[in-house]
Amino acid sequence: MTTEQLTVTIIIASWKNTVGRADKVFSELTERQFLQEVAPGRNRILYLLGHLTAIHDGLHTILGLGERLHPELDATFVSKPDKEIDLLPSIAKLTKYWTEVNGSLFEKFGRLLPEEWLQRHMVMSEEDYARDPTRNRISVLLSRTNHLSYHLGQIMLAPR
Amino acid sequence: MTTEQLTVTIIIASWKNTVGRADKVFSELTERQFLQEVAPGRNRILYLLGHLTAIHDGLHTILGLGERLHPELDATFVSKPDKEIDLLPSIAKLTKYWTEVNGSLFEKFGRLLPEEWLQRHMVMSEEDYARDPTRNRISVLLSRTNHLSYHLGQIMLAPR
Repeated sequence: MTTEQLTVTIIIASWKNTVGRADKVFSELTERQFLQEVAPGRNRILYLLGHLTAIHDGLHTILGLGERLHPELDATFVSKPDKEIDLLPSIAKLTKYWTEVNGSLFEKFGRLLPEEWLQRHMVMSEEDYARDPTRNRISVLLSRTNHLSYHLGQIMLAPR
Repeated sequence: MTTEQLTVTIIIASWKNTVGRADKVFSELTERQFLQEVAPGRNRILYLLGHLTAIHDGLHTILGLGERLHPELDATFVSKPDKEIDLLPSIAKLTKYWTEVNGSLFEKFGRLLPEEWLQRHMVMSEEDYARDPTRNRISVLLSRTNHLSYHLGQIMLAPR
């Protein structure tokens, strides 16, 4: 294994590991628990599940991996805060989307070559990338992994 | 810049970025807010500041970067949960330690060569590393960055 391959393997493993922790947490929640706020007046777990699914789905676009699976989620889970939309999609539906989105990403991550991970991401111009080569696919994936950890820490606080 | 240098630069930047976000949050809290629980019955922010400082300080040892600055913090902030120790160190003291520890780490990170980031970390035997070369300094730093994001998400929930 080259050092580039090794590094990319570790970065993907960190993402997958964190997704796996979230999977386990979601799989153990009851319906009532999905509707709990993580702290008084804050987001409900179900909203965060939709939010995380939408943000992860967006990685298809930003990393240039093909079409998103559920672009319709953004209107509810990215553009609006929790409790502004009366009826969220069901737990069963959002859990299914969450699993599908992460499965699709993981499969596509495996097809990228190490040097492609170091290339610019898709919402950035070639000129910007020339100025700052650290804004590449790797930096996007690290940022999304931390985003997931951030909300996972919150989800752990909701009353069980 | 070689691809190894670029990747290590991005991983350190992700850590530094997350530490910077935490610095900003801590710097804007009042004394009263430091003593708020992040959610009812959960850790107080001051405890999490001590916990994060202790865990980051431990990176000196695990990454082989020299002596820890404040090993005494573990007894209060790692081995014990919040509220089991009557008197925590002061906000001023813990904030100072937090800044010192991260400053020391950042300075030492800069001295490691890219290939040293790919070497095994110090609590792992050579045999274990031969079996799993992904358990190196990079994977430890990613794990600690996610740990910080996890608790940062929680700190953001405390009543202001």
